[in-house]
Amino acid sequence: MENFLLNRWYQFGFSHELGDVPLARTIIDIPVVAFRASTGISALLDRCPHRFAPLSTGTIEQDRIVCGYHGLAFDGSGRCALNPHGRATTALRVQSFPVEERHGAIWIWMGDARQADTGLIPDLSFIDETPETARIHFTLAIRASYRLVTDNLLDLSHADYLHPDSLGGVMTGVRPAVAETDAGLAVEWENRDVVPPPRFHERISASQRANAWTRAEWQAPAVMVIKTALTPADRGRSREDEVWALHSMTPETAQSTHYFVCGTRRDRMDDAEYSTRLRAMLQRAFEHEDKPMLEDQQRRIGTADLSSLRPMLLPIDAGAVLARRKLDRLIAQEQAADSAPSQ
Amino acid sequence: MENFLLNRWYQFGFSHELGDVPLARTIIDIPVVAFRASTGISALLDRCPHRFAPLSTGTIEQDRIVCGYHGLAFDGSGRCALNPHGRATTALRVQSFPVEERHGAIWIWMGDARQADTGLIPDLSFIDETPETARIHFTLAIRASYRLVTDNLLDLSHADYLHPDSLGGVMTGVRPAVAETDAGLAVEWENRDVVPPPRFHERISASQRANAWTRAEWQAPAVMVIKTALTPADRGRSREDEVWALHSMTPETAQSTHYFVCGTRRDRMDDAEYSTRLRAMLQRAFEHEDKPMLEDQQRRIGTADLSSLRPMLLPIDAGAVLARRKLDRLIAQEQAADSAPSQ
Amino acid sequence: MENFLLNRWYQFGFSHELGDVPLARTIIDIPVVAFRASTGISALLDRCPHRFAPLSTGTIEQDRIVCGYHGLAFDGSGRCALNPHGRATTALRVQSFPVEERHGAIWIWMGDARQADTGLIPDLSFIDETPETARIHFTLAIRASYRLVTDNLLDLSHADYLHPDSLGGVMTGVRPAVAETDAGLAVEWENRDVVPPPRFHERISASQRANAWTRAEWQAPAVMVIKTALTPADRGRSREDEVWALHSMTPETAQSTHYFVCGTRRDRMDDAEYSTRLRAMLQRAFEHEDKPMLEDQQRRIGTADLSSLRPMLLPIDAGAVLARRKLDRLIAQEQAADSAPSQ
Repeated sequence: MENFLLNRWYQFGFSHELGDVPLARTIIDIPVVAFRASTGISALLDRCPHRFAPLSTGTIEQDRIVCGYHGLAFDGSGRCALNPHGRATTALRVQSFPVEERHGAIWIWMGDARQADTGLIPDLSFIDETPETARIHFTLAIRASYRLVTDNLLDLSHADYLHPDSLGGVMTGVRPAVAETDAGLAVEWENRDVVPPPRFHERISASQRANAWTRAEWQAPAVMVIKTALTPADRGRSREDEVWALHSMTPETAQSTHYFVCGTRRDRMDDAEYSTRLRAMLQRAFEHEDKPMLEDQQRRIGTADLSSLRPMLLPIDAGAVLARRKLDRLIAQEQAADSAPSQ
Repeated sequence: MENFLLNRWYQFGFSHELGDVPLARTIIDIPVVAFRASTGISALLDRCPHRFAPLSTGTIEQDRIVCGYHGLAFDGSGRCALNPHGRATTALRVQSFPVEERHGAIWIWMGDARQADTGLIPDLSFIDETPETARIHFTLAIRASYRLVTDNLLDLSHADYLHPDSLGGVMTGVRPAVAETDAGLAVEWENRDVVPPPRFHERISASQRANAWTRAEWQAPAVMVIKTALTPADRGRSREDEVWALHSMTPETAQSTHYFVCGTRRDRMDDAEYSTRLRAMLQRAFEHEDKPMLEDQQRRIGTADLSSLRPMLLPIDAGAVLARRKLDRLIAQEQAADSAPSQ
Repeated sequence: MENFLLNRWYQFGFSHELGDVPLARTIIDIPVVAFRASTGISALLDRCPHRFAPLSTGTIEQDRIVCGYHGLAFDGSGRCALNPHGRATTALRVQSFPVEERHGAIWIWMGDARQADTGLIPDLSFIDETPETARIHFTLAIRASYRLVTDNLLDLSHADYLHPDSLGGVMTGVRPAVAETDAGLAVEWENRDVVPPPRFHERISASQRANAWTRAEWQAPAVMVIKTALTPADRGRSREDEVWALHSMTPETAQSTHYFVCGTRRDRMDDAEYSTRLRAMLQRAFEHEDKPMLEDQQRRIGTADLSSLRPMLLPIDAGAVLARRKLDRLIAQEQAADSAPSQ
């Protein structure tokens, strides 16, 4: 049984994924149903306390989710607001989880609800600053541990080999700089005076030289912002040059991940057709290259702990190794606090 | 490993399901093959004692089932009647199970054969009294415990929510009367002076009032007869008004069930076209509403014992709870008797 | 966890199956990738030592297999010949397995490489002596233990029942002669003065009498040559009459087998159309009769050890029983040698 970090916000999904029907997702092994009410989004254990029917197959009526099996209705707090077969006693309740909608995403707190602090939601204001036309969304089901998905992004040198025709071309040979941050870790790659890869030729001609910059900012347990820029070698980099993307690796189970991506940019922000082209390029990389590779890795690793198999780590893995250690430490601290005698 | 009640008859199938080829079904985790001989139906362990080939993939010749692998032939008692490779010694035998064909169904005894008493086969003469044209059969494979299928039928209030367009409309708010019977339990619902649901409007107009009556008679371990009637409120109910249906929930494994239904009626008994229409309505309810709900429940419960998950039971569950208790008691008694020293 | 015999050659595949892309196969539970280099075939553990990506999804460049994830390149010995991210240290290596291409097949040694003696590769020169036009190949994935596949071939009386329209017709009633050989076991069936089955009528008319002869030569752990002949009863048998076939049962896992067959003959050796017809007949037998039967057996046996289920063995099983015993003894000896203190 894998231990997850509990007292943190996990991305449950994107706002646009939750319409007027319930949305069911398993998060850290727990089945959850989210639904919209006039008072906001709610998230409940997706299991009616009466007979364990999934509430997500029911309907939403008057801000309540109604079980499709016997008609018990629960409000967003998990309280049974209607029992057609008797009294709606206080015992008739289903576990609820704190949820918050922010930055175009839905965030869920699976741990101790009293500690749920919305101030801990990752600051992704860059998404709010980006018009819908320039946002590129992915929701991918990866049959691999969220730790492998994280490793994949903290060592972006893989792009040169796994995504040679799209994202690769400027990473190999650069020693990344790894720095601890308050919430996690930042890994930064700078490659100066390189030949711009073909995908940039619209902006920088093949005859020019360029500086490539990438920065991955990881927050425990499972959120990353990746910032990239390719700029002419003869001038500095401004925020306008940078492309920022959210990558959330929400654990579904120990060996499967809800992988959410939201890419943004600062140029041609109203050009939806350009977004469509970029999306196709990214989809190939994420869905047809990263996903199979991650699932292949997981199959080779099986249910073993990665470190027990003694991988031959390289300098490029520095970020991933530090992130795993930091996450392990946070989980250990949380479990120690939980088992400590209360004063 | 789930314990099943052994010394009782389980429905193996319907008579019309067993033609002139063998029929293989796993019953309480044991693979069984049934076949017809001139002397009647036989049921054997579906595993040749020689090399463990399934006998059910063989052929029937001269009242014997012939293994398709090496030609060993077994008669209905399990005795090897022909060994093409040597002597048919008495050691060459396969386990046989008592079977009996009655009420259009095949009944099998998985326990101690010496105790197999055909007097214990549920009395379903109402099926014999019904012409084929008025019988409606279902054989459904449910990936859920037979106990969940039983619970579902002992609390028929679910019909109002899960089958609103077909079977529902007259149960909610009625407190069922639960009574122990010799073989099990009877749960009865009476709802007087109700508006007849649309499906009855051919017989009782929407402007009339009606009395709704339902009675579920359960016998351990896994047979139920459900009787229903909707009659005009201004007259009494006669047998002719009642619709009786057999529901058998034969355990295949701890988490899967052979669900057999045979519906009968007393009106328009020669109207096969009417049966076809009724069947379509029932198929929607049983196959497309009950089956997914039961399988969803089982997925939420997993392999846990239901009570260990502490469901919040309601008064409507009284029948289901009592039936589970009675079944548990019978299983415990049987196991105690098995382990007692023989005199 | 099943114990396999390690210090022997297993057939990895046929030569024609390995082209210019890597070929991945799991052998005795270990994922292996084979690839062709200018220096010959190599076989490596199919798991990059860095991040456990399968090497088989990579590419072959300059006699090296290049991991598709981060570009590490390994030569045929398993040495990292190129690390784009730093030094190719000697620690960066992947396990290699001795392989040898012989008799149109690829042979792999999964045990102690120092003991890999190509002299132990089964002598299958009869394949080399057969032109391609007269070779009939099968590679079948069987979801059953290689021991069951072996049993199946060491008791060929099953052909009369499982393959009555193709291979059967001359085995039942013949007591096989079983003899130990250096490498394993030979089982021989002779049936004199029989009516030739229909498939031979092109060569021996239905009115003639014939002698049927079959010899299965098994070598531990998993290779067999089956020789058959049907000759007119009034003359002796020559090598020209004999049809020889290789059957390799390479364990993939404890419960699945790579089943390789290469049939050869001495008549009409240039007649490819005749081979096509023969292949269709054999395909029916191997793929549509043997394979389902073996998989059915395995399902009935589950993960149990066959002997623990106490099969009722017959005289026809003598060869299979002796082969199992011999194999068990060889495995026990090997394990004893491995655990003995070295001098």
